[in-house]
Parts: sequence; C-alpha cells; structure tokens
Amino acid sequence: MTVSQTVELRATPNSPPSDSKQRVGEFLKTLQDNICQKLEQVDGGAQFKQDEWERPEGGGGRSRVMTNGNVFEQGGVNYSEVWGETLPPSILNQRPEAAGHRWFATGTSMVLHPRNPYIPTIHLNYRYFEAGPVWWFGGGIDLTPYYPFLEDVVHFHSTLKEACDRNHPEYYPTFKLWCDEYFYLKHRQETRGVGGIFFDYQDGLGALYQGPDPKGPASQHSAQVGLPDRRSWDELFTFVQACGNAFLPAYVPIAEKHRNDEYGERERNFQLYRRGRYVEFNLVYDRGTIFGLQTNGRTESILMSLPPLVRWEYGYEPQAGTREAQLYDTFLKPQDWLSGAVQA
Amino acid sequence: MTVSQTVELRATPNSPPSDSKQRVGEFLKTLQDNICQKLEQVDGGAQFKQDEWERPEGGGGRSRVMTNGNVFEQGGVNYSEVWGETLPPSILNQRPEAAGHRWFATGTSMVLHPRNPYIPTIHLNYRYFEAGPVWWFGGGIDLTPYYPFLEDVVHFHSTLKEACDRNHPEYYPTFKLWCDEYFYLKHRQETRGVGGIFFDYQDGLGALYQGPDPKGPASQHSAQVGLPDRRSWDELFTFVQACGNAFLPAYVPIAEKHRNDEYGERERNFQLYRRGRYVEFNLVYDRGTIFGLQTNGRTESILMSLPPLVRWEYGYEPQAGTREAQLYDTFLKPQDWLSGAVQA
Repeated sequence: MTVSQTVELRATPNSPPSDSKQRVGEFLKTLQDNICQKLEQVDGGAQFKQDEWERPEGGGGRSRVMTNGNVFEQGGVNYSEVWGETLPPSILNQRPEAAGHRWFATGTSMVLHPRNPYIPTIHLNYRYFEAGPVWWFGGGIDLTPYYPFLEDVVHFHSTLKEACDRNHPEYYPTFKLWCDEYFYLKHRQETRGVGGIFFDYQDGLGALYQGPDPKGPASQHSAQVGLPDRRSWDELFTFVQACGNAFLPAYVPIAEKHRNDEYGERERNFQLYRRGRYVEFNLVYDRGTIFGLQTNGRTESILMSLPPLVRWEYGYEPQAGTREAQLYDTFLKPQDWLSGAVQA
Repeated sequence: MTVSQTVELRATPNSPPSDSKQRVGEFLKTLQDNICQKLEQVDGGAQFKQDEWERPEGGGGRSRVMTNGNVFEQGGVNYSEVWGETLPPSILNQRPEAAGHRWFATGTSMVLHPRNPYIPTIHLNYRYFEAGPVWWFGGGIDLTPYYPFLEDVVHFHSTLKEACDRNHPEYYPTFKLWCDEYFYLKHRQETRGVGGIFFDYQDGLGALYQGPDPKGPASQHSAQVGLPDRRSWDELFTFVQACGNAFLPAYVPIAEKHRNDEYGERERNFQLYRRGRYVEFNLVYDRGTIFGLQTNGRTESILMSLPPLVRWEYGYEPQAGTREAQLYDTFLKPQDWLSGAVQA
C-alpha cells in the first residue's frame, strides 16, 4: 500500500461505539481488580492499600500499593481516567487531527518489584485515548529478570504470542520488536530486560508500527507486513483485553516457581544494583513518566514504579563466566526468544 | 541599560589570553588534586581511585572515586577536558555566535555522599567553554542536608558570600537566587537542598543572570542591578578560582562537626529516602547529566553523582513537629539564610 492510501484510510472515520469510554474504563478497572486480587493471593502476606485521587484539571484515579509482602517487596497497580483541553505537542505531532479537541485518556499501569532476586520485575500498561475525530489504544508488558532463566523468558513470550496470535498474526512479531526498541537504555547499550510487547497509536488504520525510529527492526518489519486490513474499534478492544488478561498466566507461574529459591547477599546486591537501571530508564527515557512529572500529574502515583531500595556502584562489571555476565551477554540484548536459537 | 547596548557590548570582543585553556585547565586539575587530598585526610580511611579515560570524539578526563570510607560512603571528583565540532542546540540558543565553530570545554565536578545522615551531601561543578568568538565560565556549589542545622547553612552561605564579595558585590545575591531556581524539583515543589551559588554564561558582558526564567527572582534581581561594568577574562577567572577554593572551608568544618554524631535506623532511613530526590533531580532535570547521557559521554563518570544506596517509599510524609518535618517546612524552601530571619 502507498502513503496516499494510508492518508485516505485515516480520513475515513473508523468510529468507536458511543459507550467506548465506559467499556474501556470498566475493563481496565476490572483488570486492576483481578490483578490485585491474584497478587494478594500469591503474596499470602501483604495487601494492597488504595488511594483515590482527583486531578485538578479533570479526572482522577485509584492507586493501589502493596509493600513488604512475602513475595513482593513493593507493587503498585494504578488506574486513572483523565481529561483536558490540549494534548502535549509530542502526541499532537503523531495525531495532528487531535489539535483543538478536548482529550480523554484512561489506563491501568503496574510495576512489581519482587523480593527474591530470582523473580523478575514486571511492568504492564494499557491505555486508551480519544480526542475529537481520533482514538487509539496503546500499551504493553515487559519482563526484567535479574538472573537468566531461559525457560521463564520462553514461557512469558509464548503466553504473549498466543494472546496476540488470536487477534492478528503480525501483532506479536511487530510489537515484540517495538518493545525491544522502546525499553532500551542507550547510555548503557542495554535492553531494560527481555522485553515483551509494546504498541501505541493503534486505531485500526495505517501501519502496525507507529514509533519514532524509521530505520529500526520494528519499522522494517512493519513495512514488510504492509498496511493490514482495517481493524474496527471492537477488534482492537478485544486485542487489548487479550493482552491485559494474559498478564496473570504469563507472570504468576514464574513468581510461584522462584518464590522459595534460596539466595544470598551476592544475589541481593546484584538485584539492588540492576534496579538502578529501572530508575535510569523510567526517569531518563520513559515518556509517560516524564510527561506526568512535567504536567502536574500525581507524583506519588507516577513514581510508584521506582524500586523500594536501589544501589549504584561506580564501574561495576560482572565477572566473566558468571550468571550475572550471562544476563548481560545474552538477556540484555534483543533476542528472538521463541526461535529456539538462544542458548542459556 | 538597554538591550541594544547589551548587543553592542557583546559584539565588542572581550578576548581571553592566548593561554586561557591551559590556565583554566591547570587550575581545575589542581582543584581536583587539593579536594581529593583533603577529603582523604578528613576520611582517614578510604582513598580515591583514578580512572583516566579518552573520549572518541576528542578529549578525555580523570575520574576519581572513593567508596566505603569512614566519613564518605561514596565520593566522586571528576576532571575533564573535551572538544568537538558543534555545540548542542540548547547552548547555541544562548550563544548563537558559537555556531559553526569548534568548541572546547573543561570542568571539575564533584558529589559527596557521606555516611552519617547529619552530614549534608555536597555538589560542586566549575567549567569553562570556548567556541570561536565566545567564551564563558559557569558552575556553582550547593548543599543538601538531611537534617536541619541552621548554623551549618549559615556557615556554608557566609563562606560563599565572602568569596563572591571579594570579586563583585552582586555576585552572591544574584547567583544565590539562580541556584535556588536551578536546583528545584518542580514535581515535588521542593528545592534540592539549601542551595549555594550557581551561574552560567559569564563572559564579562551582559547581565549577571543568563538563565531561562525571565520572571524568577534571580532575573528580577539581575534586572535591578542592571548591566554591570565590563569584567575581563582575568577578573572572571579570579572569581571562579575564589569559588573553587571556597569549597574546603565551606564544607569540611560541617563534615568534621558531625562525623561522630550518633544516629539510628530512623535517621539512616530518612537519609536513604531523601537521596531519592538527588536521583530524581539529576536524571529528570540536570542539564549536564541529560546532555552527557544523550551525547555519548562516559556514563560511569556522569552517573557517579548517584548515591550508593537509595530508598523510595510511596506516600511518605514527615510527622508534624519532627526534625524531618522541619527540613521540609523550612530548609527545602528558598530562604535568605544570611538575613537572620530564618528560625530553626
């Protein structure tokens, strides 16, 4: 398909149903409920505490935080529904049709920092925007292990791929590459973890990849795919529901498997050190975090993604041949985890 | 004075001596030496380890780091001398005359994270730029206490004021306000600490304040001062030397005073929590850090400012009437510390 066809398709409305905001909001609130309920059960100790908050400019949310659990040293699951007059320039560049229109956004986001260094940190975020004539879904999920267990990564990616494949055969291949591109620490030349899926600006029109790097693997793959058949609002909502509902089966078995693994000071120190990369990513690169902080968002809800305890160590390098080195050499580089080619 | 006069003055060269780079470089290296020598003596345990490094695009530096000392849990003192083809747009906006010219920059920067929560964290940075027809000095020093001791803050600011006053009566009043403006965490509505002095783009021409906020107290004060008499390169270099040499007398007595203060888990936890603000400032706001990370600087040297151990805690608020609350209520707001009006 050509560029002119893309523009033509975008100009043809692909309308959401009249109750779109309510339906997405209900799903995202239920997702928050289901996740919190299951995580409390897995933890078996701590419970989530909820703060409801309002945003002066419009909207609000409910933040839920668990601290000092048996399994989860800290976990935050946040739901919000906010609106305003003008979207920021970074978004209007991508969706100029939204200029001059009031916007609405709703989303559920989560970060879990487990206590045991053999359980990976996990992040999830799904969101929905409407602004005048345009709407889109975005979000994703990515896994950040401290120690390399290939079978965990394969389980995680397989579960995501299944959820994606039920909706479109090119979702997983494209959004997996987009995730590797997004969760990348340029100054460290490392991925944040082993990735997952990430997507944005999904309105059923245009190319699957709508990210900033026209030369990256995600963009190239998306160009090979070409312009897929138009997908309706309901099809995309079904896809996002599948992604959200894939979290518990993708992650909980990994947490359960390692919850009683024995570890010592070495593993704990490495976990605290690697958590520093999470802080660096969220404060230096993450668009949601930076946008929130600069636009009078609720600071405590935005920064509940930061780990409860973190170390930095000047000049640290893992010793060759150790599991820590294996993390760097294999797991912090983009990999095709489901190809069977990764050795670990 | 009017704007047209400013332009006229800038157009008239205020030339540096032919050996300007060598003289500033020698001073900044000696400053690094003197600071490291004295800090090792104060610490009485750990010593600095030096890494020399080269920058592929031109130049290099020597990073010195002390870890696990008696007094200093971590300390980094970095000297660098780098050059390149094109300054970044953020600097060219301020100094368009530098466009199309090769640039040279040299600087010494330092951050100390003491172990005892009663000793403040301290940051210092002095730097010098040349690019074609323009040159300027910049830098400053600021103190970040964990517990409120008014007499320490008064000693620190008095020592800086003395060093400034020997050079120009308006340096301290203007650069103190500029420091409050620069080291401010907007998303927390807190100053980073109790400030100090900060300045940039000092070339002996134009207004004392050259920062981004035309409505802030620093800008307003600078406008009241008007355009000071032209200052030569040598006068400004003498001023920067006075600032650099003021560090040891400004800080060491505070560290010595508190080095044996007894503290418990409460004070340690509060220190680790407050260190999180240092991370937030450096990664979200600090122009030097962000510029360095985004332009292929030496990551380990840039991030040696980050604390060795840090806590985040969702929803923390100090209990009314405690010393922790006094820090927030008085010490994390801009204050005229030398007026005698601050009660603590």
